[in-house]
Amino acid sequence: MIDDKIAVTGRRGRGGGRKARQEQRQPEATQVIAGLVRNIPTYELLSEEGLATVEAAADTILKDVGIEFRDDPEVIEIWQQAGADIDGERVRFEPGMLRTIIQKSAPKQFTQHARNPARNVEIGGNNIVFAPAYGPPFVRDIEGGRRYASIEDFQNFVKLAYQIPWFHHSGGTVCEPVDIPVNKRHLDMVYAHLRYSDKPFMGSVTAAERAADSVELAKIAFGADFVDQNCCMISLINVNSPLVYDATMLGALKVYARANQGVIATPFILGGAMGPVTIGASVAQVLAEAMAGLALTQLIRPGSPCIMGAFVSSMSLRSGAPTFGMPEPALAYLAIGQLARRLGVPLRLGGCLTSSKISDAQAAQESAHTIMPTVLAGANFVLHGAGWLEGGLVMGYEKLILDADQLGMMHVMASGIALDDNGLALDAFREVGPGSHFLGCAHTMANYETAYFDPAVTDSNSFEQWEEEGEKDARVRANARLRELQGSYEPPDIDPGIDEALKDFIARRKDSMPDAWY
Amino acid sequence: MIDDKIAVTGRRGRGGGRKARQEQRQPEATQVIAGLVRNIPTYELLSEEGLATVEAAADTILKDVGIEFRDDPEVIEIWQQAGADIDGERVRFEPGMLRTIIQKSAPKQFTQHARNPARNVEIGGNNIVFAPAYGPPFVRDIEGGRRYASIEDFQNFVKLAYQIPWFHHSGGTVCEPVDIPVNKRHLDMVYAHLRYSDKPFMGSVTAAERAADSVELAKIAFGADFVDQNCCMISLINVNSPLVYDATMLGALKVYARANQGVIATPFILGGAMGPVTIGASVAQVLAEAMAGLALTQLIRPGSPCIMGAFVSSMSLRSGAPTFGMPEPALAYLAIGQLARRLGVPLRLGGCLTSSKISDAQAAQESAHTIMPTVLAGANFVLHGAGWLEGGLVMGYEKLILDADQLGMMHVMASGIALDDNGLALDAFREVGPGSHFLGCAHTMANYETAYFDPAVTDSNSFEQWEEEGEKDARVRANARLRELQGSYEPPDIDPGIDEALKDFIARRKDSMPDAWY
Repeated sequence: MIDDKIAVTGRRGRGGGRKARQEQRQPEATQVIAGLVRNIPTYELLSEEGLATVEAAADTILKDVGIEFRDDPEVIEIWQQAGADIDGERVRFEPGMLRTIIQKSAPKQFTQHARNPARNVEIGGNNIVFAPAYGPPFVRDIEGGRRYASIEDFQNFVKLAYQIPWFHHSGGTVCEPVDIPVNKRHLDMVYAHLRYSDKPFMGSVTAAERAADSVELAKIAFGADFVDQNCCMISLINVNSPLVYDATMLGALKVYARANQGVIATPFILGGAMGPVTIGASVAQVLAEAMAGLALTQLIRPGSPCIMGAFVSSMSLRSGAPTFGMPEPALAYLAIGQLARRLGVPLRLGGCLTSSKISDAQAAQESAHTIMPTVLAGANFVLHGAGWLEGGLVMGYEKLILDADQLGMMHVMASGIALDDNGLALDAFREVGPGSHFLGCAHTMANYETAYFDPAVTDSNSFEQWEEEGEKDARVRANARLRELQGSYEPPDIDPGIDEALKDFIARRKDSMPDAWY
Repeated sequence: MIDDKIAVTGRRGRGGGRKARQEQRQPEATQVIAGLVRNIPTYELLSEEGLATVEAAADTILKDVGIEFRDDPEVIEIWQQAGADIDGERVRFEPGMLRTIIQKSAPKQFTQHARNPARNVEIGGNNIVFAPAYGPPFVRDIEGGRRYASIEDFQNFVKLAYQIPWFHHSGGTVCEPVDIPVNKRHLDMVYAHLRYSDKPFMGSVTAAERAADSVELAKIAFGADFVDQNCCMISLINVNSPLVYDATMLGALKVYARANQGVIATPFILGGAMGPVTIGASVAQVLAEAMAGLALTQLIRPGSPCIMGAFVSSMSLRSGAPTFGMPEPALAYLAIGQLARRLGVPLRLGGCLTSSKISDAQAAQESAHTIMPTVLAGANFVLHGAGWLEGGLVMGYEKLILDADQLGMMHVMASGIALDDNGLALDAFREVGPGSHFLGCAHTMANYETAYFDPAVTDSNSFEQWEEEGEKDARVRANARLRELQGSYEPPDIDPGIDEALKDFIARRKDSMPDAWY
């Protein structure tokens, strides 16, 4: 959280938040803003009755249709022990059963530890944690255009997320380094997070043994006992929607839950394909699918950290392609936020999504229409906070820079309105009076530097000045900011012994298996 | 409002909204969507205590500092009669005085009549009315670049706002037709609204006699008695912030209030210049300044329609230039919405604001970060809903098209989530089951066409298809849509006798005075 409580919403505040506010507005690279405390209310879209209706619908899905847990007899056995109705791989649940399991032991809030303890983040409650996008196999920048992502790109994005203070988290697969064999790239990815950043990060989920490798690397970095007792990684377990957990995801889920590491159980619903085309159905489906994964983590290791996730898109009526930043997912997010609070678990949503191919007006508009509902919905962990293009196929360098400004804006938005004497400024009105201006008054002088958010890429200069400077659009200015950041990167310190041990482990693991490319 | 109630939030809904939903999603040019009924809750940012604090601050400003009403002895006389404290042109008010005057007679909601009664709009309550931007002296499109606006541009924008169904209102000075003399252009502007559209519109405020001309033109179009008893125009009265109403605005305000036409009393606060740099102060200032204008309308003609307005910007710390789409004004908007509801008057906010020079990522991002808080704040009349560039200096053709999509998105957002049987789609889950897809299921087939918002400019196609089509960014696609609309415009019908009478009146008024160019 920010050092000082910087603002209050709806009540007279304490003073003294100015230093923090200044830091917040004019952050230096690698400044520590370890999470953001939401100081504004969540937006309550649905009524109590509406929420109960959705919960009943989710229970009906779980009882009438159930969830398939594929190719994992151990998981079926766990459900049988828990009293679920087993029919081959299909598992059905009595209404309320999963909720009871979750509420018995799932933590409402937990700390994810970072290599640098100053960057530990709180996940849950009023806390918001921003991470970059996850998963794109391609990258794009102005100079190089669209191309397959490499491990160098991966490292670049880890470095940028380390430098930009609006990211509290280094994320996970910030892009897919396709130049490294599939069965080995998780090692280089986790290493990059540990070496080029000191922010918290995510582990691999593409196979149980890769999840286990991630845990081993975390043990080297944090200490084995520490990892067993503390959350040092969170990981993304996507549901194979509709209503399926596949063997890969179950394998990774089991590794992380047993290791007491955080699991984000995320229904992945492209409306019309992986779920019905109506929003109410998407919301009920998210709750049903997420509860199954969350309850499973608690059956495996009661009290292990878990997060309810949701990924919901709409669909183009013209092409059938998924669309992002549309109002339907925004509404779904807001309702899902309410459902997560009622369930009592942290929530992952987000963040700056778009189907646009480049960082144009479409990309910015769709991203804004996703990130604001994400924050107002009370999301605790915001994945895809920046960089995402083309429905997640591309990690955009300029897009990351542009989206980071939106994340910065959300820091201010979430801090609310200060209604203390300085905030209300009655003396300034008395000093200036009607018809004059406030440019030089005492209140303005005292607050000027810290008063307003200062985005990195926005150009609010006059037309004439903008023209003289070459009529640069936001994407071109973002590119300049990108190169500036890249020119000033300095890696965080790391204990040389730990660095050596990480490298040793990785080398041994790589030597132990042949390269696999698919 | 939309023909049918299309969705419910938080309770089981009626069916039968499909036709309306279909119309809403795939609107034809000139389709009638006469306003939007907000079916989702407002966002309540401040607590009761916080709101009371802001109200007390506004009362303190009104009592300790007061408002100047310049060069208008009649207005001073009105305030004296009402019991205010008069000191030359400075008028001070006891706490609660203005609120009492307003709440005694100001309508909470009223109908603004359109030339086509099917396009009448409700202003107040849960209703939202979108209008294009107001005031820019320049226009911009891709082909012509940035240039002074002409009456042809003005007519073009009236026609576009007529064609695009997300506009419920034709607006006012959609751009400033600088090729017409200053003292005559209001006649051509009002005529354009009456002739090239049949949506409701705004009158001139640049001089009392121009306001009077606007009223006369409305009487020709609607009938004199009808205008006296019904709101046929609303007009924008900007406060000369801080704390000044000037003679021009007072002159126009008096004309409209006496004629029973709607007045939007709008504090115009560029934070740091026309008000303090803190958000709490901006919000208190808006309330104080707006209440003065609103109360004045009610003293002039009790029961005449009035709207509380607010225009609040932040400032660039680097250049001192005003900035738009920033989080501080968004927070202000949300609080102002609460204050307007407590006061019991309709609210004007909005809409898609930016300091960007072109329709790039900055423009879209800043616009989105304004329009969403505008809607969640419960704004009833949204001015600057589309087209605004460069802090209001430029009306952008492509920007209008892009912003219109955001207004369309807000139609869906405001309609909420349907939680009826069709919305929850439990039978679809039973039909499809785990691991399959919903593309061809009965529920998808029944809802497909109307399920998701279909923006005009968004491209959600594959990269390959987008590349093959020439890698067009959103601005280029908006330009294509613009020319398509312009190619299909057909004017609404008008009674030839009324058209003739309007033209006669305008010709006589123009002949009665020499051209004035400043």
